Formats: sequence, C-alpha cells, structure tokens
Amino acid sequence: MQKDDSMSQAETVAGSAAKWVYLFGKGVADGTAEMRELLGGKGANLAEMANLGLPVPPGFTITTEVCTAYYDNGEKLPDGLKVQVDQGLAMVGETVGSTFGDKDKPLLVSVRSGGRASMPGMMDTVLNLGLNDETVEAVAERSGDRRFAYDSYRRFIQMHSDVVLGVDHHLFEDILENYKNLNGHSLDTDLSVEDWISLVGEYKDCVERELGEPFPQDIHEQLWGAIGAVFGSWQNNRAKTYRRLHHIPDDWGTAVNIQAMVFGNLGETSATGVAFTRNPSTGVKELYGEFLVNAQGEDVVAGIRTPQSLTEAAREEIGDDKPSLEALMPEVFAEFTAVYEKLEARYRDMQDVEFTIQDGKLWMLQTRAGKRTAKAALRIAIDMAEEGLISEEEAIMRVDPLQLDSLLHPMIDPDAEKHLIANGLPASPGAASGAIVFNSDEAEKLAGQGNDIILVRIETSPEDIHGMHAANGILTTRGGMTSHAAVVARGMGRPCVSGAGSIRIDYAKEIMIAGGETLKKGDRITVDGSMGEVLLGDVAMRQPELTGDFATLIGWADKVRRLGVRANADTPRDARQSREFGAEGIGLCRTEHMFFDHDRIIAVREMILADDEAGRRVALDKILPMQRADFTELFEIMAGLPVTIRLLDPPLHEFLPHEDGELAEVAEAMGTTVEKLKYRVAGLKEFNPMLGHRGCRLAITYPEITEMQARAIFEAAAAAGKKTGKPVEAEVMVPLIATRREFDLLRDRIVAIADEVQKTTGEALNYSVGTMIELPRACLKADEIAETAEFFSFGTNDLTQTVYGLSRDDSASFLADYTAKGIFEVDPFVSIDEEGVGELVEIGIARGRKTRPGIKLGICGEHAGDPSSIAYCHRIGLDYVSCSPFRVPVARLAAAQAALSERDAAS
Amino acid sequence: MQKDDSMSQAETVAGSAAKWVYLFGKGVADGTAEMRELLGGKGANLAEMANLGLPVPPGFTITTEVCTAYYDNGEKLPDGLKVQVDQGLAMVGETVGSTFGDKDKPLLVSVRSGGRASMPGMMDTVLNLGLNDETVEAVAERSGDRRFAYDSYRRFIQMHSDVVLGVDHHLFEDILENYKNLNGHSLDTDLSVEDWISLVGEYKDCVERELGEPFPQDIHEQLWGAIGAVFGSWQNNRAKTYRRLHHIPDDWGTAVNIQAMVFGNLGETSATGVAFTRNPSTGVKELYGEFLVNAQGEDVVAGIRTPQSLTEAAREEIGDDKPSLEALMPEVFAEFTAVYEKLEARYRDMQDVEFTIQDGKLWMLQTRAGKRTAKAALRIAIDMAEEGLISEEEAIMRVDPLQLDSLLHPMIDPDAEKHLIANGLPASPGAASGAIVFNSDEAEKLAGQGNDIILVRIETSPEDIHGMHAANGILTTRGGMTSHAAVVARGMGRPCVSGAGSIRIDYAKEIMIAGGETLKKGDRITVDGSMGEVLLGDVAMRQPELTGDFATLIGWADKVRRLGVRANADTPRDARQSREFGAEGIGLCRTEHMFFDHDRIIAVREMILADDEAGRRVALDKILPMQRADFTELFEIMAGLPVTIRLLDPPLHEFLPHEDGELAEVAEAMGTTVEKLKYRVAGLKEFNPMLGHRGCRLAITYPEITEMQARAIFEAAAAAGKKTGKPVEAEVMVPLIATRREFDLLRDRIVAIADEVQKTTGEALNYSVGTMIELPRACLKADEIAETAEFFSFGTNDLTQTVYGLSRDDSASFLADYTAKGIFEVDPFVSIDEEGVGELVEIGIARGRKTRPGIKLGICGEHAGDPSSIAYCHRIGLDYVSCSPFRVPVARLAAAQAALSERDAAS
Repeated sequence: MQKDDSMSQAETVAGSAAKWVYLFGKGVADGTAEMRELLGGKGANLAEMANLGLPVPPGFTITTEVCTAYYDNGEKLPDGLKVQVDQGLAMVGETVGSTFGDKDKPLLVSVRSGGRASMPGMMDTVLNLGLNDETVEAVAERSGDRRFAYDSYRRFIQMHSDVVLGVDHHLFEDILENYKNLNGHSLDTDLSVEDWISLVGEYKDCVERELGEPFPQDIHEQLWGAIGAVFGSWQNNRAKTYRRLHHIPDDWGTAVNIQAMVFGNLGETSATGVAFTRNPSTGVKELYGEFLVNAQGEDVVAGIRTPQSLTEAAREEIGDDKPSLEALMPEVFAEFTAVYEKLEARYRDMQDVEFTIQDGKLWMLQTRAGKRTAKAALRIAIDMAEEGLISEEEAIMRVDPLQLDSLLHPMIDPDAEKHLIANGLPASPGAASGAIVFNSDEAEKLAGQGNDIILVRIETSPEDIHGMHAANGILTTRGGMTSHAAVVARGMGRPCVSGAGSIRIDYAKEIMIAGGETLKKGDRITVDGSMGEVLLGDVAMRQPELTGDFATLIGWADKVRRLGVRANADTPRDARQSREFGAEGIGLCRTEHMFFDHDRIIAVREMILADDEAGRRVALDKILPMQRADFTELFEIMAGLPVTIRLLDPPLHEFLPHEDGELAEVAEAMGTTVEKLKYRVAGLKEFNPMLGHRGCRLAITYPEITEMQARAIFEAAAAAGKKTGKPVEAEVMVPLIATRREFDLLRDRIVAIADEVQKTTGEALNYSVGTMIELPRACLKADEIAETAEFFSFGTNDLTQTVYGLSRDDSASFLADYTAKGIFEVDPFVSIDEEGVGELVEIGIARGRKTRPGIKLGICGEHAGDPSSIAYCHRIGLDYVSCSPFRVPVARLAAAQAALSERDAAS
Repeated sequence: MQKDDSMSQAETVAGSAAKWVYLFGKGVADGTAEMRELLGGKGANLAEMANLGLPVPPGFTITTEVCTAYYDNGEKLPDGLKVQVDQGLAMVGETVGSTFGDKDKPLLVSVRSGGRASMPGMMDTVLNLGLNDETVEAVAERSGDRRFAYDSYRRFIQMHSDVVLGVDHHLFEDILENYKNLNGHSLDTDLSVEDWISLVGEYKDCVERELGEPFPQDIHEQLWGAIGAVFGSWQNNRAKTYRRLHHIPDDWGTAVNIQAMVFGNLGETSATGVAFTRNPSTGVKELYGEFLVNAQGEDVVAGIRTPQSLTEAAREEIGDDKPSLEALMPEVFAEFTAVYEKLEARYRDMQDVEFTIQDGKLWMLQTRAGKRTAKAALRIAIDMAEEGLISEEEAIMRVDPLQLDSLLHPMIDPDAEKHLIANGLPASPGAASGAIVFNSDEAEKLAGQGNDIILVRIETSPEDIHGMHAANGILTTRGGMTSHAAVVARGMGRPCVSGAGSIRIDYAKEIMIAGGETLKKGDRITVDGSMGEVLLGDVAMRQPELTGDFATLIGWADKVRRLGVRANADTPRDARQSREFGAEGIGLCRTEHMFFDHDRIIAVREMILADDEAGRRVALDKILPMQRADFTELFEIMAGLPVTIRLLDPPLHEFLPHEDGELAEVAEAMGTTVEKLKYRVAGLKEFNPMLGHRGCRLAITYPEITEMQARAIFEAAAAAGKKTGKPVEAEVMVPLIATRREFDLLRDRIVAIADEVQKTTGEALNYSVGTMIELPRACLKADEIAETAEFFSFGTNDLTQTVYGLSRDDSASFLADYTAKGIFEVDPFVSIDEEGVGELVEIGIARGRKTRPGIKLGICGEHAGDPSSIAYCHRIGLDYVSCSPFRVPVARLAAAQAALSERDAAS
C-alpha cells in the first residue's frame, strides 16, 4: 500500500504502529468476546473460543477500524495492513503446517465478513481461497482425493466469482445443470474427478467471457480481492437497507475474518453442520441442529440438500431414516456436547454454532447468540434465570418486546375447519392469512396498499428481505429450519412454513399447485408457522392469552418498571382484553367509535342535520342513554382503575354518507330529502379535515354535545360505582386544545354537569378534567393550560402530523422515497421523532409541571406501543403509556427494560 | 353606599380617602390632558381646556378607577363616592349660580361616558338631567321660555328612558309622530308649549306603561341611574365587540363626566355644532364643521336635520343658501377661531371639537384628536411637521399604516363609463363595487362567504358596526359628513357615501330606488366615497400611485426603519407594482402560479400524467423555456435587487381537472382517455392536501422538476444579468423542509445545475439556496438546517396552520365562534400569534443564527403586511418582511414606527 498525502484520520491517529490484525488459534488469541466493536461479533467469538481452548481453525481478524479507515480514505486500505496480514498468514500456515500459495503444502483459507451485528446482504463468505491451477494439484496430492480437490476448486471459482468478481452464480449453476443433463447425471455425487476438472475449465471460461479477463491465479490477488469485496459490500444497497431497517449506524464498519480451511467434504468421516444450544423454536434445553455428511457449510444454510438430525431423539421425532450425528460419530458428538456446555457457561445465552468435522476431528467455526422465536426467547430467559445462569433482570433484558408481538396475535382456532393443502416445517410460529404473491417487490407494493400478503417463494435470499418484512406470512418449498427464510422470519416475528416440498411453484405463470389445487396470485391461503401447515383460504383464529412463561416474565418486568401501562380501548371487548393483558386502566376511550352502531348513527345524523340547538338537543337526548350504557359497562369492567374518556373528536361529516345510493337510503330513513342531506354534506366538506372543525372546536360550536357526553360519563360513573362498590376514576379528556381559553370554556361546562349529576344522584364523583396535548401550540402553552387542566395525555399521532406538517393518511405515497433516501431512518409514525416531536413533548412536560407540579402525564399515540418510543417515554418522565390492548404486554416489558437500562447507565 | 366585607381591592388600596372625583371649570381644574388613564379622554381634555382658560361649562369627572372598582366589587359603586359627587355638584352649582334640585334655581347637568379611547356602543350621553315636574317650571321661569323648558324636559325623558331605563326611543318617536299627525303639524318647530306639555304627559305615561313604575322624579335617582348606566354599558355586547375589534383591554374601564348644561336650543341666538381644526377628508388647514341653530348636540350628530357650514368659504363651495356661522355670529366665530388655534398649539394635532352657543356665548363641550381619512392623515402629519408643530418622526407615528391601505386600492378610473344613479356626500374616500345588502347581519354573513358587499342603510348606528366592517363600501341616505356612518367608515378605511337623499330604501321589500332604477338585494353598485357618487354596476378602477404626501411620509419612514421590505410577486405586473411601491426585492415568487397559463397547463398535465421519469422529462423540457422567460423578465424588472424564487409547492392534483366535463375536455386535449385521467386524479387525491405530497416532498419524489426549475432560474439569471448589466441576486427557496436531509438532497441538485449553467454560459452566478421555515419541526431543527441553508424565510401562514393544527381554508366555519367567545382576540391568520407561532419563529431565529451567524432572515406569510406583526418582526430581529405589493408602503411605514417605538422604549 502506498502512503499518500491524503492520509485518513484513522491512519493518523493509529500511525504506522496501528494494530490492524488480531490473531487467534491454538488455545490463545489476541482478542476476547468483549472486543465486538473492534473485531466484529464473529471475530470476537472466534478469539473467545480459542481462549476457551475449543478447537478453532487458526486465523486472524482484520479489525472494523480498517473498514472505517477504508471509507474515510477514499476506499483505500490503510498503510501497514499488508505486512500484518502477511504475518497473520505466516502464523496460520505455521500452525497448520502449510504455506499460503505453496506448491506442495498450500494453505487454503476462508474469508468471512463479520460486523458487530449480523447483517444479511453483505458479502458473506469465500471458502477454499488459495486454490489455483497449481495448488489444486497439491491439495489433490496431500488429501489423496483428487475429486475433492477439484470439487473444492469449482466451488471456490463459483463463490469467488459471484461475491468478489460479480459474476452471477446462476451462470455456474446453469453450466453444471447443463453438464449433468448432457452426461446423464442427476446428482452431484454422480460426478467423477474428470467431470469436475472439465467443469472447472468451463467455469474459468465463463469468468473470462463475462469479465474479459481470466479468473485470478494469483492467490494474493484472490485474497485482497476478497478483503476488498467484504469492505465494499458494507456500502451495497442490500446492506444499507438492512442497516436502515435495523438501525445499525453506517460508521460501525465490518471486520474480515481469515481462517485456515477445514473441510467437511473430505468423505464420509467428514461433515458440516449448524446447531443451537437450545431449541430455537420452543426454547427447550436440548441440542438442536442439523448436519450434512461430506459437505461444505453453505450446503446446510442454503437448504439445497435436506440435512440430518444431530440427536437420536430429534431423529426419532421426525421419523428420519438417516442416522443422527449422535449415532454416526458418537465421540465427536460427545466432544461437541462438552463444547456447547462450555459455550453456554461462558456466554450465558443460547448459542448458534457452526462446526465442521474433518476426518473425524471437530472444528468450531462460529458461535453467536442464536436467533429464537418469541416463545423460545421467553422459555430460555426464564430457564436460564431459574438455572442461576442469569438474573431475573437479565432475563427481562433478553427478550425483545417487539418479538412478543407474535405471541399476542391470533393463532389458528383448534376447532376451526381446516383444508390442509401442504405440510412443511414449522419454521416461525404464529398463523397468518393473506393473498399469495410470488415476488418480494410486489409483496411490498400490495402490502403498502393495505393488503394482507403471504409471500410464497421456492427459497428466499437476502434480496427478499423487504418482501418478507411487508408480508404477513412466508411460505417456502425448500430449506430447513435454519434456512434463510426460517431464520429471517423468526427474527422478524413473521409466521413461516419452510420446505413445503409438495408444493410446485411456477413463477412465470404466478401460480402454485398444492394439494391438487391450483392457486393463482391473489388467492388466499393461511400459513400456520407453529404447526408447519399450509391451509386453503382464511381460517378462524383464536385470541392469545397471557399465561405460562409469558406471564412469568411480564410479572418480573412489572417488579422493575416505573412507567404505568394503560390501553386504548373503546369497547367492552377491548376493555376486557386490556385487563387480561394487565392494563392498569384505559388511557384513551374514543367515544366516536360508539356513534357508529346502526341504531345510534341515525340519532347522530339527526343531531348533525338539526337546524338549531333545540333540534340538536332532541337528538342528543336519544344518544344519551346509549352513551351512558357504554360508559357504565366500561367503568364496571375497569372497576378500580382510571378510565380516560375523550370527548367527540372527528369532524361531523365523518358521520354522514357520501355515496349517492347511501345518501338516498339515509334521507329516507331520516325523513328528509336527498337535497337537504347533500347540502349539509357539502356544507361540512373540508379541505383539510385533520386541521378542521373537530376536537374541542366542535364542542365550542356545539357545547350541547359536550354536555350530553359529560352527563353520560358522570351518570355512568355514579351507576357503576354504586354497582361494583369500587371507586370509579373518570378522566374526562378534551381533545385538540390549542389555547387555555378553549379548555376553560369546556371545563366549566363539564364541571357544571358533574355538579348537577352529583346533586341529582347523591353520589360523590371521583373525576378529573384534562386534555390531549396534540398540537405544537398546546406544548408551548402547557404552563397556561395546566393551570386548569388536571392531566395531559400526549397525542403523538396528531403531534407528529402537525410538527412535520405531514398527514399520516397521505404520506404512504412518498414515505418509501423518504426511507429509501435516508431522510427518515424510521417512519416517525412508528417510532417517535425524539428530536422534533420529542422536543415539543419535553417542553410540554416541563411547562405543565411548572404550573401544576403533580400533573398526571401520559401518552396515547400509537408510539405508546413501540418499545423504542416507550424507552423514550420513560426517559422523559411520563407517568404512563396507553397503547392498543394487544400491545400492553409488549409495553410492560419495554417499560421494564427502559427502567433497567436507565439503572445500568446510572451505575 | 354601604360598606361591606367584600370590599374591592381598589377600595382597599384607595381607602376612604380615595379621590374618585376630579373637578374642572372657571380656568382651573384638578386634572390635565395627560391624565387620560384616570379621567378618560373626554374628562382629561375638559380639564385641559379649563386649564387653558377656554370657556368650559363647569363640571367634574368620576374616574375610571371607579368603573374598575364597580366591577371588582360585584357591580357596586365604591364607598366615599357619593360624598365627592355631592361636593362636585355643589361646586358646579356655585359656579353657575344654581343648585341641583333647587325649586327656584335648579342646576341641570349632562352625564357623559368617557373612556381612554372613544367607544361607540357605550351609553353616551344624557342631557338636561335634573329636570322633573317641579324644576321644569323653575327653568321655564328662569329662562323666560316655557316652550324651551318643556322641549328640554321631553328630550330628557326620552334620552334618560332610552339609555338609562331601557325604554326604546322609537316608542317616543312614534308618540311624537302620531301627535303631529293628529294635530296637523309637520315640523317640531310647529309645536307650541302646550303641545310639549301634553307630550311630556304622554311620554311619562309611556314610561310607566313600559316599566310598571313612573319616570323618576327624584333627581338623585336620575343622577345615580345615569352614572350606573354608564358603568353598566361598559360590559354590554356592543361595547365588548368594539373593544375586541379594536384591541381595547376590558380592564381599562370608563370615566363619567358630569357637567353643567348649556343650551344651544334657547332660540335663534343659540346653536350647537361640531368642528375639526383641519379638514378631516383632505387634511387642508381650514376650519371645517357644521352647526345647527336652536338645537341640542345630538341633533347634529344624529344627522336628522341638515346642518349649516361654519365658514363662508365652505358655504359657498356647497352652494348652501343658509348662512354660515361666520356670517351669522361673527364675534362668536372669531372667538371660536382663537380657541381652535389654542387647542392645536396645545395638542399638536388636529382636533375634533363640540361646542354650544347659548344666548350668544360660546361654550366648549369637548375636544379630542379628530378622526381623519388616510389622505388627511398624511397631509396633516406633513403640514404639521413643516409648520414646526411636530417632528418628522412624530409625523411618522401619526399615520396609522393600516389606514393607508385605502390609498393603495383601486379608485374609479377617470376614463371609465359611469352610470350615475345618485349623489351623496363624499364621506370616506376610495371606491368599491359590490352587491347591495340592507342589513348588517346579512352583510356580515355574505361577506364571510367571500362576496363583495355594499351595505345600504337609511342611517347607521352602533348596531351596524359588524356589517360596516364586513362590507366593502357603505351607502346611507341620511346624515352628514360627521354622521355615524361617515365617522366610522373613515375610521375603518371603508369607502362611504352618506346622505344620498334621493335614494328611497324599502327594508321590507329589500329594494332601493335610485335614479329611476329599482335595485334589489344582490344587485351590484359602485360607491365612490371620494366623489360622493353612487354608480350602477361595477365600474373600471385605476391603480393607486405612491406620490405626493404619501411619498414624502414614506420617504421619512425609510430614513428610520431597520427592517427591509420586499414583495410577494409572481408576475411581471406584480413585480413592477412592487418596485413602484418601493419594494427592496421579491421575497416570495410562487412559481406554481406560472403553471396555469393556458399553453403551459397542458405541458404541466403531460408531466403529471407521464408514466415514468423519462416521460416527465419530455414534458418538463417544454415547460423549461417558458419558466426561463418568466424568470428572465422578473430578474430584469428587479435588476440589482434580490429575488427569492420558491420551487413548486402545491400538490400535483391542483393542476388536474376534477369536474366531469373538464375531464373530458382535458383528456381530448392531452390525447388520453377520461379513464386514465380519472385514475390519475383519484391516485393523487389526498385526505389533507395541506399536509400531503407537496413542497420539497414533490422534489424528493420527482427531482427532475427541481432540476428543470433550477435550470430555468439560473439560465434566466445569466441572461438577465447580461442584458441589464446589473447583478442578479437569485435566491432559490426550497419549501416545506422538515429535516436537514431533505434540504441537502435538493440543495446538491440545485448547486449541480448552477455549476453546469455557469460552465455552459460562462456567466458567474450570484445565487444562494435557502428554505422556507414553515413547519414546527423546521423551527426546532433550524440549527441543523442552517448548516447548509443560506437563508430562511418564515412562512407564517403554514406555520400558523401547523402550530394550531388549524386549516385556514376550513376555519371560517367556526372562527366567528372563536372570536365571539374571546378565544381568539385576533384572527391568528391576520396578526401573528406571538405566544405560540412566535415562540417557534424565535427558536428558529436563535438556532439558525447559532450555526450560521449571518444568516439572512425574512418572513413571507401574510402577516408580513400586518402592522402589528411587522412590529413584532422588527422586535425579534428579522432582516426583512415580504408582503403583497399593495402592502409594501404600509409595511415601510409600520417598519419605521416599529423602529421609533423601540427607540422610545429604550430611551
């Protein structure tokens, strides 16, 4: 590497004495598991395994600082790296008794990327690097297996050409397929050494044809090409998309791991496999995994051959006739068992490991925290806490609250009638129904339009990430429990059935044939990822319950969280569900949802169409008993807990029909004319209803509506209190306040009604009157508003809309451009925009507390169910969050994690 | 008055030693002109006139503190007041040689309200108080004129009953009218003493019938009733409305002036009148006014009898055959001339005075700064400055910038064909066309719906204030230049023709007959308030020019203002008008307005309907030369001055047709189908377009539009610079920025195009790229945005919409409720909401300057033309305001006043 004037900062700081390369192997290593930032996850864990004395092929890690220096320095590798890499290769060669590029004892290496976080979409792996026309012969000689040597060489050419040189791997697969057809072979194992030699020639020709230059025979060119490809792939589009979706900073960089090759394809005493130290689907403490005899690692992950079970128990359970590793190689299996126990003891978490057996000797290639289903995450966290491996608080931190969501959504009803059309593997639990779509772009598009989608693929690849993300469920016809589809779906919490081999897919015609049915794009199916079943059409689902491990963990969470958790619930059903999920009250009851019932909407429309206040009062008198009954039931269900009821919020035109046919029908029912109805609808039409005559503005114009609602609330509170004998805590919430004067005018009316009801019923009412803080002006004037408002509930949906000047309903058309161009890291309607919206919320909190120090503060926007937003709500000192009923357990856990994180940061 | 426990704060502070009453008369007074706050305007000026030795009937003022105490103390008058009033009455009686209630020499008084600011709608005046069945005889005796005594009594009964007791004055007018009919009289002067005695009886019966109790004979009951009525009227609805419209605080309160009566109706040597020390219409330095012989003051103001001129010159000018005051009573006239010169010297402003002549003796009843037209205001300010009476800077402060607006709106084109239907008095200058409406409620309603209205009334009263405010012009058939209609219209800057006596109005049929034409409600007329002409239909108008006094004053203003003034101009015509009005550049050129020309809209629609970027680019290529030509012309007109061009802002659907017929037409013209067009229109439809896909969001999705506009701007700048030889200062403004990333993405594209154009044309471009700050988030993130944005223009229209969550287009339906209920003191779209919107603007300024200390800061919302908002913009340190072209002179004056006010406050 030539040193030039435009030396990067990293270089300057590190100087030529910088340590760019960390060695590992032979029971010692330069690094440790704690050095993830510098060495990446894979590199740090390889070093740690070496330190633990586990059998790790020797190698070295090029640090993430090199990646940063590479980009800071105009995509040039830093000075001094080459010398250190050469030293690393020398050490590795010395350990295994071979030399990189040597004609007799050539060292072959793997080159793998490895960032702090695992990242599909990056250049992943090149195996067998160091092979060329000369060294392949030495390998043949040394291994005594010429066929193996050329098979390895052709694998290397394909892999290296694909990921380093950019030659599409399909070209090589086509050549191989074509060769087999011409020569009457069906399996790779049918091919002889001559076949592979001949194919190596064809592969090299293909590369030269595609690139205009030959496949590199210079092994150093190979090596630096691969290193450059790893660093280059850090900035490819898939990697950038993944980072954006998972909030991984661009400046983390990736490390490169270079390691002596070990071979799982050296015959029947060799193998390769992946394993989890506990069952990643159920969390049960059992060795779980798959292996393939005489194969290289990518054969397992790619899901092309169906692998064998590790344990006898697993083999028996699925009724496989191929032997387990336990039976096939009992000594290796015993060693492996000891290894995984050591790893769990060291890492105090379930590990996902890759291993290779070369000629009966076990080699550990990787260990990392294993991805797991929500159910498994709960089980593992609780088991480990009970085993004494981790504390209860650590257990709380081990479960991703968002992942729990999958346990909180409907499952197939056991009593439902099901039409099974195929079986596959239960790759990711939960069930989903949707329209089938065969490619990821279309899945994303249709899901964006609000459709439920099941993404159906033969197999998935990193190119499908966006489609899997958009889909409600995933179905593949190939691949095992550790295939790409299965791993990614579990991570995302999407139900997935993988390897449903009986299904035939025709991408071109956009059809699939399953169970004798031909289904075309848009036909609906249901996937049950817990059972591995594919069902025709939609199937009845059952509501989840908060029991078992889930209840245990959430119970632990409740002990540490400070933030209260309430639910947004408008109906008795929602309210009951909320209580079951542990909500500590209702934080938002939207009364307008009560207006749409068939018999009510008529009275509501009468009210809207009335010519004057007297007419409106007549109609409101009809609505009063119905509203009162609603509230009475809610208060009874939530007995002893606070219930926040928001006064009517939407503009009145939402209650009137707009279509011609419906207009006629309603006019008839109302005893009015279509003309009058149309006139009123037209009169209520607004350019920007979100910013129109709604919220407290309706109440200012039609105070009689507020009076009716206040009366219904207070009469219901009196009745429910009497009936349940438990105190009713009614919180009357005025929406869309921009000025204190608005609030005061309405508060006075509400208090007057309360006084009246207390007098009439003789019941003392326990109530408060507060407001939504959902406009920038309300945040700024929170000090004035809090002089009379007894509580604030931050409505961050509308606040986000006004702070950004962005309509949630309309933003879908360009939100994709915004995330693609990196303008929004996260959709601000999903995770709260801490810098903008958040600053106003914080202003609102500070000013509200200035004039009313003990003011009760909550949030009821959809952000209240988003874990990162919940952490923010905790940090800024809100009293509670109020989210959708199904998010309540998620919020309880997230609130606990926020409290623990804060404690950790403080200690 | 009984003292009770709930003593008000004012009482407590003032104690029983408080001075509630201030005396004046006989060349001395307790008060001075400077004591307006305490004595009200009228009281302070009466005191001042007494101090100046002018002939003022003796009297006293009950202070405004009494009014405040009255309301603070549950509408009870404070302790100690009665004693002081009695003392005042004694002093007055002593001075004039009579005693209140005395059977031989009874003192009669007037009772008048008088706040700090004149306020129509309040109880105004009761004259002749102190008359009852007993004292009337004494007055008859003493004056030797029994007819006068009973005429005065009946006037008193009517006035006192109306304003103090609440008996409608129409009832008395009906009795009088009826009496005259029955007895064959037509004029009041036909009535004999017996007639008046008989009418007094009927009036008293009427009061007893209406109230159930007799008209009070107790003169103290009369007096305290009148005092109570003044204080009570402070909180009546008309007064409250007026205060709201004129931003008069509720806690100012009003004073009460009680003064010995002098009589202008004691025969032919008595008279009463009003005068201005300069002409209030033109500003010319000449005595201007009217008087009536043998009349009381209200006869002049009410406009029931047509008054005579004060001077011979005025009489000759209007060709009146009744003598002037100058001719009729030369000595009084000479004294009056001396008085008015003394007043101007003292007050250094044009005065509006009321006087009475009793038996040949002049009495001054009131002086105050006279209301004047904009033209007169300018002339008087400049004349007084040139006379050395005031400084140039005082002259600047003397003219209300908003009033200037009337000079800046179209006048009747002298060459226009006119169909004259009536002549009246030129009561308030300027011309307006509109639909005629006969009542004020309807005028307000129709104007609220966007109609141009001419309010037509026989005469106006304080009940008509809201209708006059809403109307474009006012026409009355009765009343002089100082009638209610004339005075109020001049104050509001509405064109007004008063006293057009040939017009007959039928309120019931809602028609007017004028010049042989019968016009019904909704028919259009034009009023020319400068000429006193009523014209049929709409008449061509001429643009105003900035010349003469106007130019002089604005020139003075320019010497003191700090704030720059630019114009919002989209067309060459606007740009030229702006320059004529002294704009120092264009602060906002809305490019979308250029898209609607007939030949352009087709290309714009092609662009919108294109299926892909390539298609859009083809259409944009057609628009480019047109946009370039627009910009070239603008740059040429504004040569040497900055021109801020905002990139395309509105959502694309605004450019597509929506009606079925138009859709077909456009589809035909575009060579596409109605279906495709409808599909695209539907696809672009938004729920809340204000918060939708517009502003920079369009540019993010369709950067090719930005590129076209940037190219057009830069190519135009190069061409215009070459042609004019003057530097072009192009400011490219990106709208609706919420994040720095949006701005940076677009700025990079704009800069790239500038680089390209500089290279191609070889011209060095002088340009900057900045942004509108019109979203709350942009204000909060102004520090980040200013890192790359070179200027900010605060778009306070959209900022007000988002800060309040209030759509300007939709707020009309409830804004009236909001102002009526005191939620909005001023419409926040008219005057900037300093507390809410303003705080965010100030945050934006502070943060913007933090990262870019010299950043150029302006405002381009409609607030930029509102004087109070301009004062605010000055205070918070903006560099310039940019308003509509016609508001430019208003803004220049307001900016100067802001600078002077700041200097005064600092000194």
